[in-house]
Amino acid sequence: MRSTTDTSKAQNARVLISIDAMGGDLGPAAVVAGISYSAKINPEIGFILHGDEDELKPLVARRKTLTGRCEIRDAKDVIEMEDKPSQAIRNGKNSSMWSAIECVRNGEASVCVSCGNTGALLLMSVVRLRKLPGIYRPAIAVLWPSANPQGFNIMLDGGADIRADAKDLMQYALMGTSYARNGFGLDKPRVGLLNVGTEEHKGRAELKEAYDLIASNSKIGDFEFIGFVEGRDLPGTVCDVIVTDGFTGNVALKTGEGTAKMISDLLRDAFAYTPLSRLASLLALTSLRRLRKRIDPRRSNGGVFLGLNGTVVKSHGAADATGVSAAVKLAFDLAQKGFSEKLAARVASASLTEQDGATDDSDNGDPE
Amino acid sequence: MRSTTDTSKAQNARVLISIDAMGGDLGPAAVVAGISYSAKINPEIGFILHGDEDELKPLVARRKTLTGRCEIRDAKDVIEMEDKPSQAIRNGKNSSMWSAIECVRNGEASVCVSCGNTGALLLMSVVRLRKLPGIYRPAIAVLWPSANPQGFNIMLDGGADIRADAKDLMQYALMGTSYARNGFGLDKPRVGLLNVGTEEHKGRAELKEAYDLIASNSKIGDFEFIGFVEGRDLPGTVCDVIVTDGFTGNVALKTGEGTAKMISDLLRDAFAYTPLSRLASLLALTSLRRLRKRIDPRRSNGGVFLGLNGTVVKSHGAADATGVSAAVKLAFDLAQKGFSEKLAARVASASLTEQDGATDDSDNGDPE
Repeated sequence: MRSTTDTSKAQNARVLISIDAMGGDLGPAAVVAGISYSAKINPEIGFILHGDEDELKPLVARRKTLTGRCEIRDAKDVIEMEDKPSQAIRNGKNSSMWSAIECVRNGEASVCVSCGNTGALLLMSVVRLRKLPGIYRPAIAVLWPSANPQGFNIMLDGGADIRADAKDLMQYALMGTSYARNGFGLDKPRVGLLNVGTEEHKGRAELKEAYDLIASNSKIGDFEFIGFVEGRDLPGTVCDVIVTDGFTGNVALKTGEGTAKMISDLLRDAFAYTPLSRLASLLALTSLRRLRKRIDPRRSNGGVFLGLNGTVVKSHGAADATGVSAAVKLAFDLAQKGFSEKLAARVASASLTEQDGATDDSDNGDPE
Repeated sequence: MRSTTDTSKAQNARVLISIDAMGGDLGPAAVVAGISYSAKINPEIGFILHGDEDELKPLVARRKTLTGRCEIRDAKDVIEMEDKPSQAIRNGKNSSMWSAIECVRNGEASVCVSCGNTGALLLMSVVRLRKLPGIYRPAIAVLWPSANPQGFNIMLDGGADIRADAKDLMQYALMGTSYARNGFGLDKPRVGLLNVGTEEHKGRAELKEAYDLIASNSKIGDFEFIGFVEGRDLPGTVCDVIVTDGFTGNVALKTGEGTAKMISDLLRDAFAYTPLSRLASLLALTSLRRLRKRIDPRRSNGGVFLGLNGTVVKSHGAADATGVSAAVKLAFDLAQKGFSEKLAARVASASLTEQDGATDDSDNGDPE
């Protein structure tokens, strides 16, 4: 049997990624194309693919690079984009999403990737994997193209929870720091708190409270707190990690994507305008491709859920093969570096820190 | 005396704009260059320029297009970018900003333009011009480049107030509609409410309340309410007016600017990369210029304060001559169309409507 052979071979690969093949806007064909591309460029990955076996088998069989590196787990149900998270939890036990998360829960795979319904994926991840001890609200960390040396900034929360109080924002700073350190090898990440101005007197009262809390944890968290930052700093160079609530973060994320798409469309139109500019675009093809690759949201917006017992990477619902492959690359990097375990250790020590901080008012003026 | 002659001639011009020459990052030279450019392309504008006469006189004298069309009002004090709004109000009575607003208050000019400290300008405008009867929170309406036929979408609040409740958001919808009708000639503007998803069950509780309130006022406000929109719709085509609180709006605005700037920088780098691409960029020069003009934040981000007895246009603090000229064009368009008066009339009728709506629950299901 093909699938039996696949299983043993997949497990021989160094890092196993659990993939939810269903629920994306472009269906399982795009997912299989994406993991096939990843398999081609990285021989160290193996896959456990979750979804309707009858549909997946022929798709996988068509990709030679996946031979012996992709086990299929049959799961007949699909969580649809319009399903409410609560419905998905109640009725989703036979879904590909559930099955994909289960593989991380039972330790078969280090990381799970899904293009499905974000709300459902998050709730299911929280319910099945559980929050790390001491975490109030998990967050989605997203990557933002920037001119920093690492090429990206990390923003969280990108939309896991529409609210966040001062303590949550402080934990986002700790989690984002850990991600930046493991994901980008930054020794001492610079953290900024998103606000409507960089002056200390600006913004909502809860942000001032968060400001003090993050500042007082920067030493033990081993990050540099640069204070308030603005929307323009998301793709900027003043910091590496930007902390905000999930409502603001989600609006900012989609605004950035929308702006990039509009400019990209205008650029295409601009070059189609005259015969001369069409000729120019031919000459500039490589440059334009390089630019497009740099700002392509499909390559940068694989979000990762932070604050759970295990790592879940959420790819765009509309992700095509390129997008899926980018999410797989991120999942592989995090799995290989033992990110989940390191983050858990950091949050555990930070929880202690926070208790220490509460009794130690002498250091930082007025920590209230 | 030169300034006397200027006065009478300036008042012969059809539309007088009151200009705060000080307080912008680039100083009065950029402001004078900007109004001079506006004067050149539009013979119907006259200016009352507020600031240090000793500094302004030689700057104006150097511009032939301003001869006889620009009166200088001496005001020695300058509101600085780092001044708190409350300080500006307390100590700013001899400032150029105060003097510029005063010209609108006493009816000498129809509209005032300033590149200064936004918070100070807003508070001073509110204190001196007063809110329109029935308005809870004034808002800054900003223009967002879009692929809609009018070339722009209107977003409000861009940062006048970091909070907005359901009633405020409903009033923003009415004010934005009025602006779209007068500024763009749209018969029935399409209004969207910014949220983290378009599904009705998503988002914060106060947004659901605002959703119902805006929906129930769409008939009398004569706009089409298309429901929740996302960040990507700010530069999109699904609506003409996007309503949000000033915190979210300000973050979105600066995120869009930052993204556009990053792409613009990358584009420049991409074209400088190889000799071939440098040649290509020469060939594509016109196309690239057209694109740059389209996404240039200096041309699009003149914000206008809505909800006051008079119109105040806030230009970017960093506005150069191009930016100032764009703000002046916006000010002229609004002044010429009697926008302030029309907005006041609409808000007045909407206030009545709101009272009507409160007693008329039968129409719209559950308006609470």
